[in-house]
Amino acid sequence: MTDTNIARRSLTLLGLGDMGTALARTWLAAGHSLTVWNRTAAKAEALAGTGALVASSPAEAVAANDLVVLCLLDDASIDSALEGTGLDGKGLVNLTTGTPGEGRARAAWAEARGARFVDAGIMATPAMIGAPETGGYVLYSGSRALFDTHRAVLEVPAPARFVGEDPGHAALHDVALLSGMYGMFAGISHAFALIEGEDIAPKDLAPLLSEWLGAMGFFVGNAAERLTSGDFTTGVVSNLAMQVAATGTLLRTASEQGVSTELIDPYFELMRRRLAADRAEHAHEDTAGAITLLRR
Amino acid sequence: MTDTNIARRSLTLLGLGDMGTALARTWLAAGHSLTVWNRTAAKAEALAGTGALVASSPAEAVAANDLVVLCLLDDASIDSALEGTGLDGKGLVNLTTGTPGEGRARAAWAEARGARFVDAGIMATPAMIGAPETGGYVLYSGSRALFDTHRAVLEVPAPARFVGEDPGHAALHDVALLSGMYGMFAGISHAFALIEGEDIAPKDLAPLLSEWLGAMGFFVGNAAERLTSGDFTTGVVSNLAMQVAATGTLLRTASEQGVSTELIDPYFELMRRRLAADRAEHAHEDTAGAITLLRR
Ligand SMILES: NC(=O)c1ccc[n+]([C@@H]2O[C@H](COP(=O)([O-])OP(=O)(O)OC[C@H]3O[C@@H](n4cnc5c(N)ncnc54)[C@H](OP(=O)(O)O)[C@@H]3O)[C@@H](O)[C@H]2O)c1
Ligand SMILES: NC(=O)c1ccc[n+]([C@@H]2O[C@H](COP(=O)([O-])OP(=O)(O)OC[C@H]3O[C@@H](n4cnc5c(N)ncnc54)[C@H](OP(=O)(O)O)[C@@H]3O)[C@@H](O)[C@H]2O)c1
Repeated sequence: MTDTNIARRSLTLLGLGDMGTALARTWLAAGHSLTVWNRTAAKAEALAGTGALVASSPAEAVAANDLVVLCLLDDASIDSALEGTGLDGKGLVNLTTGTPGEGRARAAWAEARGARFVDAGIMATPAMIGAPETGGYVLYSGSRALFDTHRAVLEVPAPARFVGEDPGHAALHDVALLSGMYGMFAGISHAFALIEGEDIAPKDLAPLLSEWLGAMGFFVGNAAERLTSGDFTTGVVSNLAMQVAATGTLLRTASEQGVSTELIDPYFELMRRRLAADRAEHAHEDTAGAITLLRR
Repeated sequence: MTDTNIARRSLTLLGLGDMGTALARTWLAAGHSLTVWNRTAAKAEALAGTGALVASSPAEAVAANDLVVLCLLDDASIDSALEGTGLDGKGLVNLTTGTPGEGRARAAWAEARGARFVDAGIMATPAMIGAPETGGYVLYSGSRALFDTHRAVLEVPAPARFVGEDPGHAALHDVALLSGMYGMFAGISHAFALIEGEDIAPKDLAPLLSEWLGAMGFFVGNAAERLTSGDFTTGVVSNLAMQVAATGTLLRTASEQGVSTELIDPYFELMRRRLAADRAEHAHEDTAGAITLLRR
């Protein structure tokens, strides 16, 4: 299959919300034959003018093509959309956000209906679809064969990253990245709250904060190495005892500035718990050791 | 004053812990005349062999030079070290970690004793001192005149960044950057906890997580702009209502994976509170709007 043949591929898309509509436009613009269905018909009609084939039911849409892409609200909406449609022999690619467990259950559900299944996590907003320069991409996991067959078509909206055959792993990567991001957002939020009302422009703090977070991003690789080796003590730069001691200044500063400590308390508490669990053992550790306390 | 004269400058350093010792070595290596004092005399004696002049008391050390650098444990240790020493006409540069309030109070205390004062926050570990390629630096605030007079000497251990005449602002920047960092550490910790026990190597998640945090670092500049303008709604990429709705998948995934949600709950709760405060008004906001809730 060469690039020139990709344009002849046809596919079905169920779901034309903000994300589905953005995806649809890129496939239409690239010359693919696209059959669409949306619960609220008006959104599908709006795309007919740009060449989309509008199906009158999910069953009709699914019947039209071997490759069926889902971009619905949530896992429950997949049940209501696909109830009673014939999936035998189909390739289902699910771009609907869900948990790893939902991805795995949906894969088993698809398999029981004779379909191959790939789950996905979209690391992009609708505005980043069809704009690879924005850095957005889509995580995929599940049937490698199905992914390989349709990779070129799937990469029309955004670059693809296949993260394994476990159909739960696309969602797990997606959630891990988003959770990491929200932690960073929390830290950034606390930092800006501290300078409110001071004669410090947020735009003057911003470059220092960006640069510092960039430099301290070394913690990702550091944590990965230590979690793999189980060695939390060799070559430690700032040990846990010193870091726990230093939290006092951070908490007192928040209190002086009238800023709630709600966003910084839990990580400080986690470090303290790790230290208290075995002070002699953990005082000289890297803070990555505290990660092991999070798993119940 | 040219660079060749810098080497003739002499200064005093009080405090030879891990950090003070690292600082001292760089000034001695650069040919400065350095008088040191440390509560535990042995640490000062150890430096005598490399050319340090060892004072037998803080008063003697302070009397020896116009520029007096402090690198003690905490603000309280400054009182015990400097009690009864003559500070009139001295330039005090305080590298001891403290809060903004401690910096301001110490500046007033120094002024009352006839001394000029600069407070500082060291954004480096001892290993990064004398090694500018590591990216470490020192934040300074307070007397601009004192800072300018001694800038070249102060930059021997690490690059200097002057952040204003308010003697509390070096500590405030220091704490803001560290607080931001701990938020990021919390997010990274949660991300790695999620994949524990899965067939995903931490080293395979690491590059994706680093790249994603790098891309999402745009939040720093975005928040700075919105906090300055007060406009949280124009040009929003992912609105608050959608983000609050999406937290469900992140929380359910943590629960599926057996991971405590303690590190991600507070930011989600903050976003929910912002949305609940005025749903019609805040649903279409950027999440930076939630920052305004942190200030009491
Ligand atoms: N937007 C983003 O920034 C973004 C980013 C990453 C991932 N995602 C994911 O992409 C998926 C779609 O997001 P979106 O932004 O397009 O959401 P959206 O604009 O709210 O659209 C939701 C879509 O799901 C359909 N739907 C909802 N309930 C249904 C049901 N019971 N039966 C059939 N169809 C149903 C809606 O149909 P109607 O038109 O009839 O309501 C609509 O097509 C979600 O899983 C989202 O998490 C979105
Ligand atoms: N180490 C780092 O990574 C790092 C990074 C950034 C900032 N800092 C800051 O740098 C400062 C020094 O840190 P460090 O790592 O050098 O700490 P350290 O190794 O624990 O040394 C503490 C120093 O303070 C002295 N001291 C403590 N209590 C005293 C008192 N009551 N009177 C007089 N002297 C007293 C100690 O004297 P003795 O030798 O007699 O105990 C020692 O010289 C701290 O404020 C720290 O927060 C450190």
